[in-house]
Amino acid sequence: MTDVKAEFLFDFASPNAYFAHCVVPGIAARTGVAIDYVPVLLGGIFKATNNQAPMVAFANVKGKLDYQMLEITRFQKRHAITKFRFNPHFPVNSLAMMRGAVAARASGVLAPYVDAMMRAMWEDGKKMDDPALIREVLAGAGLDADALMQAAQSPEIKKALADNTDAAVARGVFGIPTFFVNNEMWFGKDTLRDVEEAIVAAKG
Amino acid sequence: MTDVKAEFLFDFASPNAYFAHCVVPGIAARTGVAIDYVPVLLGGIFKATNNQAPMVAFANVKGKLDYQMLEITRFQKRHAITKFRFNPHFPVNSLAMMRGAVAARASGVLAPYVDAMMRAMWEDGKKMDDPALIREVLAGAGLDADALMQAAQSPEIKKALADNTDAAVARGVFGIPTFFVNNEMWFGKDTLRDVEEAIVAAKG
Repeated sequence: MTDVKAEFLFDFASPNAYFAHCVVPGIAARTGVAIDYVPVLLGGIFKATNNQAPMVAFANVKGKLDYQMLEITRFQKRHAITKFRFNPHFPVNSLAMMRGAVAARASGVLAPYVDAMMRAMWEDGKKMDDPALIREVLAGAGLDADALMQAAQSPEIKKALADNTDAAVARGVFGIPTFFVNNEMWFGKDTLRDVEEAIVAAKG
Repeated sequence: MTDVKAEFLFDFASPNAYFAHCVVPGIAARTGVAIDYVPVLLGGIFKATNNQAPMVAFANVKGKLDYQMLEITRFQKRHAITKFRFNPHFPVNSLAMMRGAVAARASGVLAPYVDAMMRAMWEDGKKMDDPALIREVLAGAGLDADALMQAAQSPEIKKALADNTDAAVARGVFGIPTFFVNNEMWFGKDTLRDVEEAIVAAKG
């Protein structure tokens, strides 16, 4: 058995990151391989790659967005996801949340931080670009809101998020969710079955 | 066990239709459900839905086309597809081939017709917009090239292809390959595992 490096590149701004987050922990549990959550800025990725959200790119393509809604419905059904609600404030600027994620990662509390933000964004429909609201949600989750939000303002944390984003683009990332198994890349929530197979194969 | 209506909407112009065609017969064999090949005109679908080929739509998105090539490589590996060669004359106007497909379907020889055209387009790299070349390929496959190509020129066949295309758009189709299991739609070669599951589920 060899070491497997598995990564999930995420941004709270993306509903598909929420859907992936509903499934990724189960893959880690079944395979016994930890999956590293890597905070990146989707807006930065889009800018660097000249990409845009499907909702924008396909706005004028008849049938395409209806089909994407159908894919979302099927994904929820397959994975018994029952609490999703499209954020009424979409698109929500995720910069403060994502800097907080880098701070939470550095403090070893990324998992509860991610749970709290995902829930606030994609179950409770909160407008999470507001630092006061982020603090409130963090406190509600029993996290040290003051320490995290203060750390999130440090130059090191800001730079780390920008570096993660640049590194992702350099590896070929153009959207969220993206997964890596060692250096093999998969894009999109509907590739998670392949990602799980790849992790199993990589374990050898 | 109930009757299941399974359909594969195709156009020889699409390399992804070739890849789907490499897999669809195996699904039919494993499930025992015949999968109806429905000839449609991809150009007509694109025009009616304001869609375009991924190669065009994502031409300026860094990383996206490289990832699509990776998906193609993975699909070939997963399904042991070894003969694919990107057609050097791409894009090839498929109107004559697709009218011929409607004629072949009406004559009960659609399966060998599809095999012959797919091979010529996506293994042998021929410029199949040329009726003389279509005849040659059909004759080489032991099909009645004269009868098929003459039938393909009839107003009924021309109208049937246009009608298939219009009906597809009315059902929400925006690209190729598209699959239906009863009235449930799936788009893209990478949904074929879901299509197979849906056929099994629909058999009850």
